[in-house]
Amino acid sequence: MPKSKNRKRSVPLVFADTHKSADQLYVGKFSVPDPFISFKKGRKWYAVLNQLEYARALKESAFDEVLPLEDWLKKATGCFPSGKVGYVEIIATLAQAFKFEAFKVASDFPAGIALGLIEKGLAVNVSEGSLFPEREIKSEKELQLIKEGNGCSAAGIRAAEQALKDSVIKKGKLYLEGKALTSERLREVIEIACLRKGSLSMDTIAAAGAQACDPHCAGHGPIRANELIIVDVFPRVSKSGYFGDMTRTFLKGTPSDDQSRLVSSVNKVQKEAIKAVKVGVKANSIHQHVMNRFISLGYETRRDKSGAVGFIHGTGHGLGLEVHEAPRVSIADNRLKENAVITIEPGLYYPEIGGCRIEDVVAVGKEKPIKLSSYHYNWVIA
Amino acid sequence: MPKSKNRKRSVPLVFADTHKSADQLYVGKFSVPDPFISFKKGRKWYAVLNQLEYARALKESAFDEVLPLEDWLKKATGCFPSGKVGYVEIIATLAQAFKFEAFKVASDFPAGIALGLIEKGLAVNVSEGSLFPEREIKSEKELQLIKEGNGCSAAGIRAAEQALKDSVIKKGKLYLEGKALTSERLREVIEIACLRKGSLSMDTIAAAGAQACDPHCAGHGPIRANELIIVDVFPRVSKSGYFGDMTRTFLKGTPSDDQSRLVSSVNKVQKEAIKAVKVGVKANSIHQHVMNRFISLGYETRRDKSGAVGFIHGTGHGLGLEVHEAPRVSIADNRLKENAVITIEPGLYYPEIGGCRIEDVVAVGKEKPIKLSSYHYNWVIA
Repeated sequence: MPKSKNRKRSVPLVFADTHKSADQLYVGKFSVPDPFISFKKGRKWYAVLNQLEYARALKESAFDEVLPLEDWLKKATGCFPSGKVGYVEIIATLAQAFKFEAFKVASDFPAGIALGLIEKGLAVNVSEGSLFPEREIKSEKELQLIKEGNGCSAAGIRAAEQALKDSVIKKGKLYLEGKALTSERLREVIEIACLRKGSLSMDTIAAAGAQACDPHCAGHGPIRANELIIVDVFPRVSKSGYFGDMTRTFLKGTPSDDQSRLVSSVNKVQKEAIKAVKVGVKANSIHQHVMNRFISLGYETRRDKSGAVGFIHGTGHGLGLEVHEAPRVSIADNRLKENAVITIEPGLYYPEIGGCRIEDVVAVGKEKPIKLSSYHYNWVIA
Repeated sequence: MPKSKNRKRSVPLVFADTHKSADQLYVGKFSVPDPFISFKKGRKWYAVLNQLEYARALKESAFDEVLPLEDWLKKATGCFPSGKVGYVEIIATLAQAFKFEAFKVASDFPAGIALGLIEKGLAVNVSEGSLFPEREIKSEKELQLIKEGNGCSAAGIRAAEQALKDSVIKKGKLYLEGKALTSERLREVIEIACLRKGSLSMDTIAAAGAQACDPHCAGHGPIRANELIIVDVFPRVSKSGYFGDMTRTFLKGTPSDDQSRLVSSVNKVQKEAIKAVKVGVKANSIHQHVMNRFISLGYETRRDKSGAVGFIHGTGHGLGLEVHEAPRVSIADNRLKENAVITIEPGLYYPEIGGCRIEDVVAVGKEKPIKLSSYHYNWVIA
C-alpha cells in the first residue's frame, strides 16, 4: 500500500512548470517554463527556483519564500553522497530540513518523483484531480480575469464575423480579398485578433459543413456559401493564464429551413440552460433538460453510419486556469456551487444539415447566473 | 518497493493529452486536448478514445488500433461493480483483456494513476524522463519539421527587425507609427508573424536594456535607443507540434564600444561552439569551451548585488516536440549523438552594458554540424 492514510500532517507539494500545471500557476501567480518544486509549510508557500528564475520570483511571484535551487542541490548532494542527486533527493532533503514526512500531491503529479519519495520512506497522498479543489470557486478577481478571457474570445469571433461579412460568394465558395476563404485563413484572422487582445488562442475551431459535425475538428479547406460555420474560440490571456471560451455559429448566404430550425433550437435551448444555472442545482439536471428539450424539438441523438449525430457532448465544463476544469456539466450529479464558472454549450450535429453550437460562460450566482461572456447571436451573413 | 524490477514484459503506457505530453504526440501524431490512454502491445500502438475523438483518430492518427472509451468503461464497470470506475479501472480492465501485468511509463506519468495501478497489483516501471529516449535522435522528416519551426522563428525575428527599422528615435525612446515601441508591442509583432507562418509563439522574449539581463524576463515597457534588445522566439508549429528556437540581439541607434565588444564576443564564441558540434563530442566540453573563451575575452561570470552576471545559463538544449528536451548542452558529460538536435545559445549579461544572446539550432552530424536555422547576424539598426 504505497498511499499513506495520514492526510493530516501532509504537506502540499507541486512539481511542475506553470504552462502544464494550473495548480503551480494558481499558487505562484507567475510564469516559469521549466518544472520546479513548490510546497506549503505552516502558512507559507515556498518555491525552489534556480538562479535564472530566482530574482524574478522574488519580484513577481506570490510565493512567500523563494529558496535557491543551487543551495538545496548542494545540501542534497551532502545528504546523498553516493548515487545520483535529482529532484527526489532535493525534496527528501527539504523534508528533513523542514520536518515533514508526508506529501499531498495532485493526481497529475509526476509518478517518477512520487515513487522515488515513497522509496525514500516518505508518504505521498494523491488528491483526486487538482491539489486545490477550491480552484472551482472563483474570487471576484478571477471572475474579472475570466471575463477578460471572454473579451478575447469575443474579439476573435468578431474578427471572424467581419471576415465573413467582407467575403464574396463566387460559384458557391467564399472569397476574401480575392483569395478563397478557408478554415485555416479564418483561424488565422481569429488568432491574430486574440493576440492583439493579449491572449493566445490554441486549437481554435473554424469548421464548416459536415466537418463541424466532428466537434473537435478544427476545420480545413475552403468554406462554402450556405453552410453552417462553427467558430469556437478559447484563448488564454497571456498575463493572467485565465481562459475565455465562446462559440458562435454563422452562415454566409441563405440558410435552408432545416438550418434555421437547427440554429434557433440550439439558441433557445442554450438560453433555457443558462437560466437554470444557480447555486445548488444539480449539473446533470441541466444536461438532462438540454437532452430532453432537443428530443422534444425532434432532434434525436444516435449513432448512424457516419458516427454519432445529434447532441453528442456534455452541456458544459468549468473554466479558469484550465480550459476544462471542475465542475462538469454533464451526466454526473454534482451540485453547482456559488462562484463556480461554467460554460453552457449545447450543440446539434447532423452532417446533412450541418453543426451548430452556441456557447457562453456564466458564474453560478445565488439566485441566477452571472454572464461572463457577451456577443450577439445573429448568425446569417448576407 | 512499488517499482517492479521486471522491465522485460512491461507494456509502454501513456495517459496524457497531446499538448502537455510530447510522448503522446510522438506516438499518435495527432492532437487531442484531453488526456487519453495509449499503450503498446506486441507491435501495435493502441489508443482508447471517446466518441468525440474516435472518428478523427481513425482518420488522422498514427495509432494502429483505436478502441472506443465508452466500450471499455462499460467493461470496467462490469469488472469493478462496487466503487468508482475511472481510468485506473479501465487500464486494469485492459490489462486483464490484453494479458499484461507490468507497465513502463514516463517520469511525468500521473502519480494518481500509477499508484492506483500498483494498488491493483500491477507493476509500474518509471523511465527516467521520456518514455521514448529515441526521441533524442531525429528522423529526416523531423529535421525538416524543426527547420520549419525555425522558419517561423526567423519570420518572427524578421518582423521585429522590421519594426525596429521602421521606428524613429525621439528623446531617446523608440516610436513606431507615432506610438512608443514597447516590448509588449514588439512581442505582438513577432507573434503575429509566427501565426501567419502557422505557429504559436508562447513566452516570446523581446527584452531590452537591463531587463534582458534576466534571461527569462519577457520584457515590458518602452524600448530605448542605444540599448541591446534580445529577441528570443521559440514557436511551436501548429500542424506538427515541433518547435523552432532562435535568438538574435539588436540595437537601434549607436552602440557603445562596450556593447560592440560584448556582441562581437558572443557572436565569435557562438560560431566556435557550433563548429565544435559533431558525433561523439561531450556536451560539457562545448559548454566548457564557451565558458573558457568568455573568460579569456575578459567576461567574468559572478554574483554581484544585482544577481548573477556574465554567462549565467547553459550553452544549449535539445529541441523537438518540446522546447527543452534531451540532450542538454551544459555541465553534464553526455556525448552528442548523430541527428540529435540542439540549440547553441551562449549569452553575456551585465546590467550596465546590457544582455546579448545569439542562438541557432543544429543537428549533430558525423563530421560537422548541420544548421537548421538561418538568419543574419547584423545587429545595429541605424
